[in-house]
Amino acid sequence: MKATQPLHRSATTTPNVIATIMGDRKRTWGEVRNRVARLAGALQKMGVGKGDRVGILALNSDRYLEFYFAVWWTGGAVVPMNLRWSPAENAYSLNDSNAKILFTDRAFTPAIPAIQAEAKDLETLVFLDDGDVPEGMLAYEDLIASNEPVADASGSGDDMAGIFYTGGTTGFPKGVVLPHRAIWFNGMACSKLFHIEAGDKYLHIAPMFHLADGAGSLATSMVGATHVFEPMFTPAGAIAACENYKPTHALMVPTMIGMVLADPSFSVDKLSSIKTLIYGASPMPEGLLIQTLKTLPSIGLVQGYGQTELAPIASVMPAAYHVLEGDKSGKLRSAGLPAYGVTIRIADEDGNDVPRGEVGEIVVSGPGTMTEYWNRPEETAAVLKDGEVYTGDGAYMDEDGFVFIVDRLKDMIITGGENVFSAEVENTLSNHPAVAGAVVIGIPSEKWGEAVHAIVIKKEGAEVTDQALMDFCKEHIANYKIPRSVEFRTEPFPLSGAGKIMKKDLREPYWKGHGRGVA
Amino acid sequence: MKATQPLHRSATTTPNVIATIMGDRKRTWGEVRNRVARLAGALQKMGVGKGDRVGILALNSDRYLEFYFAVWWTGGAVVPMNLRWSPAENAYSLNDSNAKILFTDRAFTPAIPAIQAEAKDLETLVFLDDGDVPEGMLAYEDLIASNEPVADASGSGDDMAGIFYTGGTTGFPKGVVLPHRAIWFNGMACSKLFHIEAGDKYLHIAPMFHLADGAGSLATSMVGATHVFEPMFTPAGAIAACENYKPTHALMVPTMIGMVLADPSFSVDKLSSIKTLIYGASPMPEGLLIQTLKTLPSIGLVQGYGQTELAPIASVMPAAYHVLEGDKSGKLRSAGLPAYGVTIRIADEDGNDVPRGEVGEIVVSGPGTMTEYWNRPEETAAVLKDGEVYTGDGAYMDEDGFVFIVDRLKDMIITGGENVFSAEVENTLSNHPAVAGAVVIGIPSEKWGEAVHAIVIKKEGAEVTDQALMDFCKEHIANYKIPRSVEFRTEPFPLSGAGKIMKKDLREPYWKGHGRGVA
Repeated sequence: MKATQPLHRSATTTPNVIATIMGDRKRTWGEVRNRVARLAGALQKMGVGKGDRVGILALNSDRYLEFYFAVWWTGGAVVPMNLRWSPAENAYSLNDSNAKILFTDRAFTPAIPAIQAEAKDLETLVFLDDGDVPEGMLAYEDLIASNEPVADASGSGDDMAGIFYTGGTTGFPKGVVLPHRAIWFNGMACSKLFHIEAGDKYLHIAPMFHLADGAGSLATSMVGATHVFEPMFTPAGAIAACENYKPTHALMVPTMIGMVLADPSFSVDKLSSIKTLIYGASPMPEGLLIQTLKTLPSIGLVQGYGQTELAPIASVMPAAYHVLEGDKSGKLRSAGLPAYGVTIRIADEDGNDVPRGEVGEIVVSGPGTMTEYWNRPEETAAVLKDGEVYTGDGAYMDEDGFVFIVDRLKDMIITGGENVFSAEVENTLSNHPAVAGAVVIGIPSEKWGEAVHAIVIKKEGAEVTDQALMDFCKEHIANYKIPRSVEFRTEPFPLSGAGKIMKKDLREPYWKGHGRGVA
Repeated sequence: MKATQPLHRSATTTPNVIATIMGDRKRTWGEVRNRVARLAGALQKMGVGKGDRVGILALNSDRYLEFYFAVWWTGGAVVPMNLRWSPAENAYSLNDSNAKILFTDRAFTPAIPAIQAEAKDLETLVFLDDGDVPEGMLAYEDLIASNEPVADASGSGDDMAGIFYTGGTTGFPKGVVLPHRAIWFNGMACSKLFHIEAGDKYLHIAPMFHLADGAGSLATSMVGATHVFEPMFTPAGAIAACENYKPTHALMVPTMIGMVLADPSFSVDKLSSIKTLIYGASPMPEGLLIQTLKTLPSIGLVQGYGQTELAPIASVMPAAYHVLEGDKSGKLRSAGLPAYGVTIRIADEDGNDVPRGEVGEIVVSGPGTMTEYWNRPEETAAVLKDGEVYTGDGAYMDEDGFVFIVDRLKDMIITGGENVFSAEVENTLSNHPAVAGAVVIGIPSEKWGEAVHAIVIKKEGAEVTDQALMDFCKEHIANYKIPRSVEFRTEPFPLSGAGKIMKKDLREPYWKGHGRGVA
């Protein structure tokens, strides 16, 4: 099981099929393999060999995909860096992984000096963008042109294929070590679960450093379909990319989908090439999900749930269950069924199975599991036990095997001895017509230990009072779950690089000087 | 990657979904897992542990499936035995694999004493059939009833999951050692390639000892679909099983399909539940393939090509290309595209890639490859090189990546310096209206080295002369490929346990006293 296997299959089987399209630039699978083998030759000359880490900090591009394969081809490991990180965090990940080489592009050139100042092992910078090459950097295309193809020296099975940093933004990130089997497996499983076949076109619109995009990317390579690239997400850019490239598949985080639907340039027609729209990386508010279903009835919506520690897929909510009526309805708020090849169980605090329907922690096993957190044996031991990954997500499984996530365990609010799942309250609030976004957290309460607190962004032009929102909740959820306080906010919620709302940042001001950790 | 993973996923996700149906007996995935864990407990008490081999010689049944999982659950390795073997061959495989335990049923009880007499390590017999238990055998259901479930002690990755004997019938068989990853991978890949999903029903009608059935079986378990079982193939029994069980998927070897279509009880209606009919394990004569297409236009035909050394899948010919006209036509004689996860290249005698379109040997890599031939390092080294399996099959790949098998390399006839692919001549003969079956072999010729010789079975009531067949060939293929002699035969061709025509048996009388090996 090699992460380079999909490239070999596609280049050997259909060398003349288009592999990558970026703007006017098109390359076949045969060309991509040849370029990857040359770039690997260049990396080997720089000293990259088995297990050596190579960083990348860049927007989406066809070369980002080649980078992944070329590093694997040398036997090395990729270190894809989060676009939202500060230079200090970027330097931290390079130092932590001892990366000597960093690939970057024009968007990140201004940040490079600050990173270089702190990244102690960094020796070589490769510029993978078009146009003038900044001083002190090597030109990507020169490396390809001036090297001969080398033989694939890729690792396989449990050999390290990459270190994917997770967390961060505040506090330093953990490096998730993913082996070749995990990368390969996600391509294999997601090709089935996302219904990607030869002849399809996958749009990279979510950032390529993140494994949410990775799942679709690997699946696309696995079947020899075509990759198309948009450098970074903007609502209008995403819509234009759909018009221009006519992709059959795309993956977006829920926030992106909301922005696309709300964009002035949006029309249903412009997205008509899409057969399957995959969403994931953060929960989709039910209101937005229903809006998407109703607005785009001919598109198959598929939810992927997972985490970096699983490379990433754990469960998939099939398109057939994205319905509001009929015998497949009632699953809409579910994260779907365990992905084929993956076993999910719901465990109590001692790791034993809870009875069906009760809430516990999602525990996942299968070929996609990480091998460790890099250089963090204690944190590894807390999460990876007997080959199972303890996800930290609270959920129950229904009689049909569907997983319903109730909350991150650490986001669960314990108020007066009752468990409140913030996600449930957020879903309720999101169904109010005046609410554009809602985050629910626990804040310190002398009386209840924690009190339910809502932070709400109103829709443009909409008016609503805190009392009106509490009354609305009262109609839908139990009394103890109703927010005891509501705060209105005008600026967007703080997001991680993957588009997740950073609840710990929202909790922090309330908990200063109190005992609860905010992570 | 454990071979038991599909059972865990299905039993954990949907414990109440029906896993197996045999006659009136139905069991859920939860029940099957519990029974497997108990049977594994019984096996452990008999001393079965990591890597220990356990034999089975039995017709298809729900218990055959449980046997596979229970042996894996102990960490042991299955040794499924060929139903057509002689007692001497059966004893050989037990001796070669040092199996101490043999599971068997009523059909094979009469053969047991002769096997016991020669199988030096055999200590324990388990009777997995219903009704009275023969003296000296343990009762399968007693083992389950009298043991508690044990924890899964399965191997994974490269650990041995089974020894699958191949060859045989004349000469002694070779034991193909397949690891857990190979078994697991075939379930994963075939679930996509055969379009098997939860809710589907797979009919075991080909013998379960053979990996042709294994591919569909593993895929069925992988997605938590339902297995239905017919003890052994008869044309009327297969048709009745389709009527009774309403399977959505079935795998048959081409000979079986021909017999089903020709059976007096056949009607299109009776097979109407089948969405996908998978065929493989031997080449399908083009005449029969076209007849099947025309007779069953609403069934998706999917060809699987592979071999035991690949556990077994190498390539798959999708249903969409089983058409006689339109832009997807012209591939009908192909073995399809490399399976997802599998890389196929066509190599010359030195192992180098041949130019596209030229004939060479099919060389396969991927997670499905065997680890070795048991106790046969020289034969292993000849077939498994740098992780690639050299299949011994001659083929070319077209521009679209479709593999066209021309012959087993050893069945290729070299006549007057020209290569003749026996399969091509057989296909031509099979299109003649009087021909029920045709085998083409090389026989000794002083003038040409080898001469093309055809052995033909006429359709009932049909008349045709050898000259008429030669004339027919002349219309379709080059002169040097035309049989120089035709022999008519009334008895069926000798078949291997997997339903393959044993060409070496047909060659043997001609080559006695000549130099060419007949294998």
